[in-house]
Amino acid sequence: MRQPVPSVPDLVAAQKPGHAMAQAFYTSPEIFEADRNAIFGREWLLAAHVSELRNPGDYVLFDLLDDSVIICRDADGALRAFANLCRHRGSRLCIAPRGNLRRFTCPYHAWAFNLDGSLFHARLLEDHHDRDALGLFPVALELLEGLIYVSLAKQPTDFAALRAALTPCLAPFDLARTRIAHRATYPVQANWKLLLENYNECYHCASAHPEFSRSHAIHMTEERVTPLNDAMQARAAACGVPTTLVDRIGQSRREGETDHAYNRYALLDGYQTGSEDGAPLAPLLGRITGHDGGASDAYVGMLNPMLLYCDHAVLYRFFPIDANTCAQEIIWLVHEDAEAGRDYDLDRLIWLWDVTTRADKRIVEANARGVASRHYVPGPLVPMEQYIARFITTYQATLTQQETTG
Amino acid sequence: MRQPVPSVPDLVAAQKPGHAMAQAFYTSPEIFEADRNAIFGREWLLAAHVSELRNPGDYVLFDLLDDSVIICRDADGALRAFANLCRHRGSRLCIAPRGNLRRFTCPYHAWAFNLDGSLFHARLLEDHHDRDALGLFPVALELLEGLIYVSLAKQPTDFAALRAALTPCLAPFDLARTRIAHRATYPVQANWKLLLENYNECYHCASAHPEFSRSHAIHMTEERVTPLNDAMQARAAACGVPTTLVDRIGQSRREGETDHAYNRYALLDGYQTGSEDGAPLAPLLGRITGHDGGASDAYVGMLNPMLLYCDHAVLYRFFPIDANTCAQEIIWLVHEDAEAGRDYDLDRLIWLWDVTTRADKRIVEANARGVASRHYVPGPLVPMEQYIARFITTYQATLTQQETTG
Amino acid sequence: MRQPVPSVPDLVAAQKPGHAMAQAFYTSPEIFEADRNAIFGREWLLAAHVSELRNPGDYVLFDLLDDSVIICRDADGALRAFANLCRHRGSRLCIAPRGNLRRFTCPYHAWAFNLDGSLFHARLLEDHHDRDALGLFPVALELLEGLIYVSLAKQPTDFAALRAALTPCLAPFDLARTRIAHRATYPVQANWKLLLENYNECYHCASAHPEFSRSHAIHMTEERVTPLNDAMQARAAACGVPTTLVDRIGQSRREGETDHAYNRYALLDGYQTGSEDGAPLAPLLGRITGHDGGASDAYVGMLNPMLLYCDHAVLYRFFPIDANTCAQEIIWLVHEDAEAGRDYDLDRLIWLWDVTTRADKRIVEANARGVASRHYVPGPLVPMEQYIARFITTYQATLTQQETTG
Repeated sequence: MRQPVPSVPDLVAAQKPGHAMAQAFYTSPEIFEADRNAIFGREWLLAAHVSELRNPGDYVLFDLLDDSVIICRDADGALRAFANLCRHRGSRLCIAPRGNLRRFTCPYHAWAFNLDGSLFHARLLEDHHDRDALGLFPVALELLEGLIYVSLAKQPTDFAALRAALTPCLAPFDLARTRIAHRATYPVQANWKLLLENYNECYHCASAHPEFSRSHAIHMTEERVTPLNDAMQARAAACGVPTTLVDRIGQSRREGETDHAYNRYALLDGYQTGSEDGAPLAPLLGRITGHDGGASDAYVGMLNPMLLYCDHAVLYRFFPIDANTCAQEIIWLVHEDAEAGRDYDLDRLIWLWDVTTRADKRIVEANARGVASRHYVPGPLVPMEQYIARFITTYQATLTQQETTG
Repeated sequence: MRQPVPSVPDLVAAQKPGHAMAQAFYTSPEIFEADRNAIFGREWLLAAHVSELRNPGDYVLFDLLDDSVIICRDADGALRAFANLCRHRGSRLCIAPRGNLRRFTCPYHAWAFNLDGSLFHARLLEDHHDRDALGLFPVALELLEGLIYVSLAKQPTDFAALRAALTPCLAPFDLARTRIAHRATYPVQANWKLLLENYNECYHCASAHPEFSRSHAIHMTEERVTPLNDAMQARAAACGVPTTLVDRIGQSRREGETDHAYNRYALLDGYQTGSEDGAPLAPLLGRITGHDGGASDAYVGMLNPMLLYCDHAVLYRFFPIDANTCAQEIIWLVHEDAEAGRDYDLDRLIWLWDVTTRADKRIVEANARGVASRHYVPGPLVPMEQYIARFITTYQATLTQQETTG
Repeated sequence: MRQPVPSVPDLVAAQKPGHAMAQAFYTSPEIFEADRNAIFGREWLLAAHVSELRNPGDYVLFDLLDDSVIICRDADGALRAFANLCRHRGSRLCIAPRGNLRRFTCPYHAWAFNLDGSLFHARLLEDHHDRDALGLFPVALELLEGLIYVSLAKQPTDFAALRAALTPCLAPFDLARTRIAHRATYPVQANWKLLLENYNECYHCASAHPEFSRSHAIHMTEERVTPLNDAMQARAAACGVPTTLVDRIGQSRREGETDHAYNRYALLDGYQTGSEDGAPLAPLLGRITGHDGGASDAYVGMLNPMLLYCDHAVLYRFFPIDANTCAQEIIWLVHEDAEAGRDYDLDRLIWLWDVTTRADKRIVEANARGVASRHYVPGPLVPMEQYIARFITTYQATLTQQETTG
């Protein structure tokens, strides 16, 4: 049962290092409200892929909890993001999740806004109102290698250091010249932090993910993994795949920076990519010249992990719904010239992360039910769960900071 | 996302004149709770039509949120209203929404109450209990031209001034001699105040209601409307249709009075009533002798608008469900002698307000989703939205008054 | 509508003796939270029947609100109860509601626990952690005549006095040598206390339960009941059915004791058991040698009533879900050697309490809807509802005590 919820500072002060978090962080509606502001209202969020916005007037919506953001390409070809909100009486401006428009016209009273956000027309509005002050509210946007990120914060965290560090790692994959082969959403009856913690450790992979563990070396001990990684390094260099380690998460990053990381690790022998049989799944991405038998883990902010194989990329998005519900979305990217049926088989492409995410849904939901129990006590993390400890530290620091600075 | 909710007095103090309301009024569960008491627990509410209660023992239920009221005709022919609540352990007394009974017998322990509310029988109740004190709780009831209104308040607002002002306006339509041709309920994912605001302005009619705008002149500018209204006035006088303007809403009414209003306006040329083709829909109501090509807007209290055509009437009821949900009901009245199929075609009769209400549902739901956004800022109202400004003032004054006195 | 909720001590202080409770006890989410701890976190709860746990490794889950308890038979044959919770990151350990296992292995990271609760294996856990401190959390368990009760409290109330008093009453029925013939769950839209109050009085039986009233004398006045009971006493003595009156509920019990009661009363002439036609339903239980034409009401704790006929037993469980929802479960027990089809007809066996519980669902839901009304005032109880008054006193005392002692 729900225990009474102490204040966030008291809860953070009571956090035992190297242990999971207290129950309230995973169950309390009050802390979920704090998360809405401090985490989802502050972090950079993967909102769209550039392939969705090729032409002037193209737009897509990015919805998260009660907020909706219009991402569009304006008449001059620039990417822009606005709150999806008429400045008159607050109606959603765009209802359809994507489209191409000359301007945004409100379905309620037909106020119209240009693609640059300025007010085009407000019928019968008295002249004394300042039309320049009635443009759409801009939302911070960053484009990184074809991936479009937004932040709902008025003062978003710095993106420059992340861009400088990650661009060389991502550039050879040329994600801007990919397209979305598939997307799937998995609703999970669990707090979003339990999904993140699950994503942040591979201690569970051996027991819960036989399909993944057959091909990916990450769940093994260091002695077994090191020689595999060494062999991959040489192949990666030959294929043009970056293997630089970037680790700027939590305490490893500078004040005001955004979490970011990049790491390449070996697949097991016989596996060229994340496929069931080890064989390639799709044409090589970008400037990659061959299969190095590796996979890259990358992070853009706390909430946007991705996996890069030589022939496809897998992007994750987490959509919190309430204290006990979160949707997990997976987006599969392939080379923009690749055609389903001819160049890749969709079922084979999505097999690994579909089966793995379905298993994660089951175990994370069992985790959520357990942590809600009156008997729950946070247990000790093992060394292989070190990134959970770091996630907890980063999360709690962010939450506390937001609580004090407002 | 939900912003923290300041107190009602602070929110009211911060209300910008000529602008929509702050987010909390449209989204906060706390303010919804305040609304339950201050608005729905205080206002007069359209509960039934006299045609539903022709004979002694006839009853209908009027349910709103957690409350249920029995409206019945007692053995002497008088209309009465009681809380639908056994005085023993609080069970609902009547379960079926309507019927004819000699007395009300509780389904739980069979306590029985007479149609005048007095306790008839309480099996095995000890003699020392005062049976006279165990009658049903009466609920305030007013009958106006066949329309039955109730108030859940112990001290309802004055109804006499409303009755005096509206009776001459309504009498020629003889609504007591109508019957309910149809009723339909439209659930809307929006706070009840967004539905009321929508009802209170026709600025959206031009863009959102092409069917209505083709026939009703109300959404046009004054220059266009005035000559149409002048022409209608003459026809109305000839047909016996009242055109008196009554405007006793908000600041225009006296202290302690109930909002009321009556206004007749012209339909566009070629339209005799609110039909798709302009042709009459049903036999003329009451003492009306011909089609004047007009429509009357009337208000009985803040929550009960109605529309009066020469051949039918359209009544609105709003049933709040929670901070983000409200059901809108429409009741169509025709002359009591009119027979479906012979004297009117039901599909034609309900066409206009069905299609219009479906469109309103869509736009009000888009409005609700937008005002919940963290970026929402109340925008400026245009002059054609003046009645929204008045609704806001009346609503906030009522809420504040109840907070301090009640 | 919901009235503002005073504090529990104020509400208890305002309780009028011999009347139903104030609205908040039946509707308030805050009081429901208090109930979770003070009542459901403290009382003994019927968790399983011994027939479900015959062999070492057998387990069943008992779930209530957010808590889950594993009841199992360990390798040495002893019954044990544990919180269904991995000590690592808090996952539910057992997902399937019943089974047979050599040990409990967590579906998340495969930590394994022995049937005695001790930690068997925690892969990669660093040596400095105290493995002895990482066993499953034990839950208090008592076995009474084949019925397994658990308490979620750290300091459960005394069970010894209850055992001493009830064992002689129950022993002749030999419930340990019965099996579960059927179980059925009835979800009810009402606070759990309204279900208990309903169970605690038979004032409603005459009007609401014609099937029950035809056969059971309990709803009649004392003059009619006494001669029937006297006749039954003689038959009971001859058949070996206990008729001792045990009444240790509320103020009748000693400080720190658990509520318990036993009482045998007569069926009406022609009824040998709780069947539609009065004829026996199944083979006689335990050491009972014939039909005495009676039924026993027994209570083990506040929440576990049961009915004992000569040929079957009926157990009740209440599963609160939220302030306005509770599931009621019925378990029918027959002699362990009885076979469906041969020795009893299942439809006949369950007929009475199925039809009665369906009727109770209807009337309790009507009660719940009524008590939520703004007009609700607790009414006077009649003498036949005396056990409700006692339930209220016991419940409120327990709640207040828990509030003050923590």
